[in-house]
Amino acid sequence: MTHSLHHPFRGKVIIIGFGSIARATLPLLFKHLMIDVSQIIVITPERVSLPYGAGRIYPLALTPGNYRQILTRLVSPGDFILNLSVGVSSHDIIQFAQAHGALYLDTGIEPWGEACRDTGLSPAQRSNYALREQILPLKGAARPTAIVTHGANPGIASHFAKQALLDIAAGSPAAPLHPMRQTDWGELARALGVKTIHISEHDTQTAACTYRMNEFVNTWSVDGFLAEACQPAELGWGTHERCLPGDGESHTEGCQAAIFLNRPGASVLVRSWNPVCGPFHGLMITHGESISLADYFTLTDHSSIVYRPTVHYAYRPCSAALVSLFDTAGRNWETPEHKHILQEEIVSGVDALGVLIGGCAHQSYWYGSLLSITTARQLAPGNNASSLPVAAGIMSGMVWALQNPGRGVVEPEEMDHPRILELVSPYLGQQLGMYTGWNPLTARSGLFKESLDLNDPWQFHNVRVD
Amino acid sequence: MTHSLHHPFRGKVIIIGFGSIARATLPLLFKHLMIDVSQIIVITPERVSLPYGAGRIYPLALTPGNYRQILTRLVSPGDFILNLSVGVSSHDIIQFAQAHGALYLDTGIEPWGEACRDTGLSPAQRSNYALREQILPLKGAARPTAIVTHGANPGIASHFAKQALLDIAAGSPAAPLHPMRQTDWGELARALGVKTIHISEHDTQTAACTYRMNEFVNTWSVDGFLAEACQPAELGWGTHERCLPGDGESHTEGCQAAIFLNRPGASVLVRSWNPVCGPFHGLMITHGESISLADYFTLTDHSSIVYRPTVHYAYRPCSAALVSLFDTAGRNWETPEHKHILQEEIVSGVDALGVLIGGCAHQSYWYGSLLSITTARQLAPGNNASSLPVAAGIMSGMVWALQNPGRGVVEPEEMDHPRILELVSPYLGQQLGMYTGWNPLTARSGLFKESLDLNDPWQFHNVRVD
Repeated sequence: MTHSLHHPFRGKVIIIGFGSIARATLPLLFKHLMIDVSQIIVITPERVSLPYGAGRIYPLALTPGNYRQILTRLVSPGDFILNLSVGVSSHDIIQFAQAHGALYLDTGIEPWGEACRDTGLSPAQRSNYALREQILPLKGAARPTAIVTHGANPGIASHFAKQALLDIAAGSPAAPLHPMRQTDWGELARALGVKTIHISEHDTQTAACTYRMNEFVNTWSVDGFLAEACQPAELGWGTHERCLPGDGESHTEGCQAAIFLNRPGASVLVRSWNPVCGPFHGLMITHGESISLADYFTLTDHSSIVYRPTVHYAYRPCSAALVSLFDTAGRNWETPEHKHILQEEIVSGVDALGVLIGGCAHQSYWYGSLLSITTARQLAPGNNASSLPVAAGIMSGMVWALQNPGRGVVEPEEMDHPRILELVSPYLGQQLGMYTGWNPLTARSGLFKESLDLNDPWQFHNVRVD
Repeated sequence: MTHSLHHPFRGKVIIIGFGSIARATLPLLFKHLMIDVSQIIVITPERVSLPYGAGRIYPLALTPGNYRQILTRLVSPGDFILNLSVGVSSHDIIQFAQAHGALYLDTGIEPWGEACRDTGLSPAQRSNYALREQILPLKGAARPTAIVTHGANPGIASHFAKQALLDIAAGSPAAPLHPMRQTDWGELARALGVKTIHISEHDTQTAACTYRMNEFVNTWSVDGFLAEACQPAELGWGTHERCLPGDGESHTEGCQAAIFLNRPGASVLVRSWNPVCGPFHGLMITHGESISLADYFTLTDHSSIVYRPTVHYAYRPCSAALVSLFDTAGRNWETPEHKHILQEEIVSGVDALGVLIGGCAHQSYWYGSLLSITTARQLAPGNNASSLPVAAGIMSGMVWALQNPGRGVVEPEEMDHPRILELVSPYLGQQLGMYTGWNPLTARSGLFKESLDLNDPWQFHNVRVD
């Protein structure tokens, strides 16, 4: 059973939020959990109808004041709560789920409401670091499994990172080849000389349509993207880094695996590389895995930190989203009047999602997947090349939770990556690993003097676009 | 005759370069100069055919080594040299034209070849300031008229700026209403409290088509746009500015009206406003008028400078160009493999081009034109909403030169703006002037602490996006 791609589930799936990702995920749940629509309960304030017939829809927004009452009516022990909302607290719903014997999965770690853009909170308080620190105390207890940050990225990206390390290690006989415990993985990364891990994503999907003024266009949730785009830029902060950025700040509490910059992630550009276009500029938008991967690979010696890679996102969103973001920044991040998620209108493109491992012997190694819109549509209805990997991440996490039901709060790095990759692979299109000679100092234009650290290409100072 | 929109011309028009702007301009020359295609000579290294039948095409590139020989064969006294190239020196062709009794017009001030991206030259040497300083010594002599920087912007933008000042003055009885000499205009700007002039352009044209990887898409010359995008950011530097930017640098020689920043203009974002979308972020790409307008409005008292506005461009190119620019920066400004100028594919949009006058009593005044793609196509074949204002600027400058043939080197500010606006107006679509309460401090998001000068909204420090 463990290695089947299917796990029949007879309980209810309570889905909080019903946007593009929820819709994208349903076909995979029908197939892999062998559920039918009668097992689905949706809670969402938006007017929706379930694309597959009946099911129950509760047309309301969960709030700090009502969630206990509402969920108590709906959730029974053994049910599965799937939080795909923007603005329903992961922390509070996890506590509820664990108290009521329900499993839980989230593709991020959500705060209540619009806390990510609440100017009454400090940047540190609005960070994903702070949201994760809230969750960490819930770990460890023998409670129902509650998986956080398990979509594509965050989620599959962490499993890619492990696979990438194994691939590199296969060519480096010195390194241990069968890492099991957390410290084994940190030792492996250190032994391979890994300095930096980019979650390197390039969405080339394009639609042959025009857009309205003040319309935000994306291939996935506009609300979700805007929320993380306005959070502070965050990155796992490696031990090789010589110099805190001028706008960088450490946290005063918690694991210290990450720092943040005092500006929106969407305004920070970083140099990265992917197999679709080669070198590119990506947005360093905050993501859970930037923190959890860095934390997971951290090695300590008598409580002092001796190794950690720098980890961050480098996201080239689809062109329409890139323009939408530019214009929204131009309106001081005011919420756009119209929102438009591209679906049937997409005519071509791929979503290339992988990790770029920097600093190892062959310079850089990219491991990830290239999924085309055509393949995504063939694989699952209602999907595009961005939603399907997220849906696969969700489905794989749910199967894993059902087969590992008593693990408490779990982050992607704590799951067995071969099992997850086995489950998601059918939905990722082409998977590949390749070396590249590229590093952040490669082919700088020379048009203007730049402050560079020539002794170490992988200093964040070199990676960041000034 | 002077006030006719037509001026019959019997000489030859020698067009250097034959890209999108040359094509766009031809119908206007046929109409307003009443020439036919037999009077046209085109010199271009690219394989082209004249869209209106015969004419002569010389399929070669002018270089420092061959231009005298070639032009000597082609140019007779009274002819008109129209330099619409990227990379044929305005300075050298003007000297040739004046020596051979020919009139001249250029939409910029070009250097030879790819000097704008020659890493062997310093940023100061690659600036438009330096190119203009080369031309200034050619001024003043009673030689054939040679107009530089006279397309839409640079070009019409300078005439818009004067008209905007008159509009504002009409509501301010204290100000002189009939400025004639250069100092009158400076006095007027100062009396009105003008601190900043943005050339505020927003191109909303969109095409329902998809693009290739490594393809640069624009509504006008890709080569021209890339050349200026990689030049240093430049701005006329106002006397109200309290603080040179950290990356800013003054020039060691010349008029001192402008400074430059040690980075490509395409990487510098500024806050501006336009009537199409309200507040927006624009690229502060260098343009001739940023320097010449600032210089023209400068007031001196016993050779010390007492007044000058800050002047710069704030350009929101069409979405496809914005994305192309982003990706080209990601490839360290390497020349893109494919170039694509949008024409028939455009399905909607306007080019809003105007000046935003900041600091006057009613806060800000925008004066300019909104030309839609539909109107542009109705007005002249082979045009879009970006090319037609440029073509109109060229045509108007040529008519003006023919009617003012002995004025030597002339910049837009030195021409009579009502006459130029009379000539170009039929091609600009809707022209409008409107006040706005917006200034660069309006509705800042408050998400992150910003260093702001609250005592003067119009400090460049507030305008620049950090």
